[in-house]
Amino acid sequence: MNFPSKLIEDAVTEISRLPGIGKKTALRLALHLLKQHEAHTEALSLALTRMRSEVRYCTTCHSLADENTCAPCQSPKRDRTLVCVVEDIGDVLAIENTNQYQGLYHVLGGVISPIQGIGPEELTCDSLLTRMGTGEIKEVILALSATMEGDTTSFYLSKRLAASGVKISSIARGIPVGGELEFTDEVTLGRSILTRINYSQV
Amino acid sequence: MNFPSKLIEDAVTEISRLPGIGKKTALRLALHLLKQHEAHTEALSLALTRMRSEVRYCTTCHSLADENTCAPCQSPKRDRTLVCVVEDIGDVLAIENTNQYQGLYHVLGGVISPIQGIGPEELTCDSLLTRMGTGEIKEVILALSATMEGDTTSFYLSKRLAASGVKISSIARGIPVGGELEFTDEVTLGRSILTRINYSQV
Repeated sequence: MNFPSKLIEDAVTEISRLPGIGKKTALRLALHLLKQHEAHTEALSLALTRMRSEVRYCTTCHSLADENTCAPCQSPKRDRTLVCVVEDIGDVLAIENTNQYQGLYHVLGGVISPIQGIGPEELTCDSLLTRMGTGEIKEVILALSATMEGDTTSFYLSKRLAASGVKISSIARGIPVGGELEFTDEVTLGRSILTRINYSQV
Repeated sequence: MNFPSKLIEDAVTEISRLPGIGKKTALRLALHLLKQHEAHTEALSLALTRMRSEVRYCTTCHSLADENTCAPCQSPKRDRTLVCVVEDIGDVLAIENTNQYQGLYHVLGGVISPIQGIGPEELTCDSLLTRMGTGEIKEVILALSATMEGDTTSFYLSKRLAASGVKISSIARGIPVGGELEFTDEVTLGRSILTRINYSQV
């Protein structure tokens, strides 16, 4: 693609480095910014730089925070006996937006993946075990992806957490709400029968 | 959507102001930037601010330029007798990337749209007529959108340019290359028969 201006070219190159944004979309966004008032571009740049340079990570659960401790870890309303282990910060946001969970979190920072060279030491597994030491936590919910790597990590964590004597659970795998049986893949359907819910427990 | 950090929330709000980017995509982009090195975010911010504040517009054709005159207007290789009238800068880029056109451009900055309150005075129509005054230009190609507004603008310009005696043409409307007859809409197909090309001319 030829650009009439080096400035546009630089902007398009930088924008198209973002995931899921190609050269054409990047150009559309750059031309949009040129049409808008200059203050718009300045606000966007400032918000991005401030976010990247000033954001902090909670020293307890490794989630995003504006201070040293994140909002859930600080909140007196939260159930401190419950910890939900997730892969990354996006998962914390997803669970928070369900408004169904009132416990704390623990962000691993990824999952164990020997192919990508990610072992337990690259994740915050040790920090999770240290948290167990306080004796306050009664249950750990493993909410990792339903992939080979996620399952491996869940298995690894459940083995290491077993010694601490806390209850270990996993989020349910099954048919999504609104999903139809005939369009569900065999593995999910098979698992949903094996892990069926007893009506008397609900 | 709840955010764990005001900084993230601000960044997501600013990113989601861009066209075609919703809150979820904005969050994905923000989290991506947090995972990357800080230099990445700084380069993006700088490229955007520099583009917006330093970019200039060609004093002749109103296209984007790094200096007072854009690259096509400066180039001695370009055919100065030919001017292609387009709606905005994105159209200049699209035509440049075909590598089929060697003339100059004129960016109108929009099309006449009474509903949106855009009349000829909001566009660079007068500047186009001033360019005609030099007598260098022999043909004006109207390359505007095939919409009601585009056609109105083409009609208005052809009327005003008639006095200058230059040849006025419009880009061809017809079946796109690779398009199949049966899936083409009636209006395009009808027009393509009316404006059929004589093989002896090709």
